[in-house]
Amino acid sequence: MANPSLLILPGDGIGPEVMTEVRKVIDWYGTQGFPFDVSEDLVGGAAYDAHGAPLSDETMEKAQQVDAVLLGAVGGPKYDTLDFSVKPERGLLRLRKEMDLFANLRPAQCFDALADFSSLKKDVVAGLDIMIVRELTSGVYFGEPRGIITENNERVGINTQRYTESEIDRVARSAFDLAMKRGKKLCSMEKANVMESGILWRDVVTEVGKDYPEVELTHMYADAGAMQLTRWPKQFDVIVTDNLFGDLLSDLAAMLTGSLGMLPSASLGLPMANGRPKAMYEPVHGSAPDIAGQGKANPIACILSFAMALRYSFDLGTQADQLEAAVEKVLADGLRTADLLGEEGRDPVSTSEMGDAIVAAL
Amino acid sequence: MANPSLLILPGDGIGPEVMTEVRKVIDWYGTQGFPFDVSEDLVGGAAYDAHGAPLSDETMEKAQQVDAVLLGAVGGPKYDTLDFSVKPERGLLRLRKEMDLFANLRPAQCFDALADFSSLKKDVVAGLDIMIVRELTSGVYFGEPRGIITENNERVGINTQRYTESEIDRVARSAFDLAMKRGKKLCSMEKANVMESGILWRDVVTEVGKDYPEVELTHMYADAGAMQLTRWPKQFDVIVTDNLFGDLLSDLAAMLTGSLGMLPSASLGLPMANGRPKAMYEPVHGSAPDIAGQGKANPIACILSFAMALRYSFDLGTQADQLEAAVEKVLADGLRTADLLGEEGRDPVSTSEMGDAIVAAL
Ligand SMILES: CC(C)[C@H](C(=O)O)[C@@H](O)C(=O)O
Ligand SMILES: CC(C)[C@H](C(=O)O)[C@@H](O)C(=O)O
Repeated sequence: MANPSLLILPGDGIGPEVMTEVRKVIDWYGTQGFPFDVSEDLVGGAAYDAHGAPLSDETMEKAQQVDAVLLGAVGGPKYDTLDFSVKPERGLLRLRKEMDLFANLRPAQCFDALADFSSLKKDVVAGLDIMIVRELTSGVYFGEPRGIITENNERVGINTQRYTESEIDRVARSAFDLAMKRGKKLCSMEKANVMESGILWRDVVTEVGKDYPEVELTHMYADAGAMQLTRWPKQFDVIVTDNLFGDLLSDLAAMLTGSLGMLPSASLGLPMANGRPKAMYEPVHGSAPDIAGQGKANPIACILSFAMALRYSFDLGTQADQLEAAVEKVLADGLRTADLLGEEGRDPVSTSEMGDAIVAAL
Repeated sequence: MANPSLLILPGDGIGPEVMTEVRKVIDWYGTQGFPFDVSEDLVGGAAYDAHGAPLSDETMEKAQQVDAVLLGAVGGPKYDTLDFSVKPERGLLRLRKEMDLFANLRPAQCFDALADFSSLKKDVVAGLDIMIVRELTSGVYFGEPRGIITENNERVGINTQRYTESEIDRVARSAFDLAMKRGKKLCSMEKANVMESGILWRDVVTEVGKDYPEVELTHMYADAGAMQLTRWPKQFDVIVTDNLFGDLLSDLAAMLTGSLGMLPSASLGLPMANGRPKAMYEPVHGSAPDIAGQGKANPIACILSFAMALRYSFDLGTQADQLEAAVEKVLADGLRTADLLGEEGRDPVSTSEMGDAIVAAL
């Protein structure tokens, strides 16, 4: 049987440097009897510089062929003035849409060794472990009509929030499935008090819930959700929400943990012919152009994204656990990249020192 | 000259009890040479019970005539199963829309005496004083087309985000005006990286900024905004954002302070013939049906909403300061309603004891 295939898209800013560390981890698994066929390509500003588009058709085609895509980060000030249609973000959005990666899994986990980093009180976040499932291929991100038109002599900006029953159904099922493997609690968030798309959302999620009688399903308005995440996040286990609310709420949840440089994500689609889901894995953090190329970036979020790939794409849960344990060990040993330095008075390790230490811990 | 007129709409849940306390404060100002003509009417579930609609045309008409509306809160489990079109919230939304209250001012202020209540670390929130200006009459709340349609044999939920240049322009000016009276910093939040309506928003706010060269204008994506509010909220002075993002972000900001029962809001429209803006004032908290009628509710948010009325509708800034100082005094004296009890081991005072104490402090 052929080795499982990975397409690495390092992207912009710190993307390439953190991806270098992930490759060390991938290579290590290769020596342990889990070899991957790895190819690499361009996305975001890097792709724009090379091809005039943030994702070439060729790269898109490759992404469709592989077992999983690992993405670093996209964007940077250099590209801020580009037209909307060729901005780095469009490359990312194209991958999500054309691969139909409808379920975006964003764990917000607070690592014991780092609980002090949060702006929240330690007892509020210590041990936090929630999973946000964000719909990723529909809603206001992709709804038509959209654009800026002229009406009565002035410009009007238009976007459309649009959800079909089946779009809600499939992401709800992903969330319920996850809840079954976790604490069996699911909270669905929308604005059904204001938006008809929210009413449909609530309706369909409730309907799907009947197939999961063991899962305790609750509903919350998204504004109340933002409040409750801030007040007492541990009340949640799995949260399911739409693309736009998910964008804000998952970033909020990520920030609760205090260490953005630690958080991975998985974006999953339908099963391919080989049974594996279409999948892309990426860190939650951005391209951090201010520290790019200085060896300061924290590679952990990207390495943990590969751990999610082991778990969700390759059914290597034990190996994923092992990689996560290696990360916890280096943290417990006191290793910190610059972003993880509080008032402890430690010296930071570099991006590559952190990668090496994690491989050593493996 | 006629006395300034107030329409009080207590609404549902704890609305009536907190409004009773506000009336004590209004009456006190009457004895001090600032008399108001006060009338009262129904909104929300209370109006539905009486008229089958969450706001009667007659009440709407009255709201259009008075100098300012004071609203308590709407909603409750009793009305959860009502049709969307007659839910309590529709009464509130109708008032906002028909009075054209486009600028929703939501201060998030952390009271020294209460800083411990926040789920955030004390140094992160102590002294916090930010103002969120939320656009309140447009965006996805009111955009057409909207509804649930059937397409390809399934239901589709649709809402439309829609902003005209002039809608953005006027709320931006309100925000810049406020920034000029405060720290001269304004941060505008949208998702210009994903939504064309966000591109237009950023464009127009930037344009308006040219008329306010003294104000330092920045732009932030709304997801990053949610993160930054959580990480270090004191970086902000005034924030301006659209209706939907404003809903989430202002609730998030409110929760940072740890004491929702303290936070007022003002919703302002265009100047009327007498020069006063169309205006409605309401607490940020909801109707809290679980504690309604038990004398446990905190009347301070509603009383501070009246302070905002003094300031923004009646140009009585000194009186507003005085009322705010009275609130701070009773807190400093150790008075706490049940929602403000932490681990201090105090006995709570009732809603009416709190109201009386504030009047006494005046
Ligand atoms: C970069 C941007 C287009 C993207 C989004 O809005 O989805 C990002 O914020 C994210 O959450 O992955
Ligand atoms: C009650 C609801 C309709 C309302 C809103 O969504 O605007 C509330 O959340 C608010 O923020 O005032």
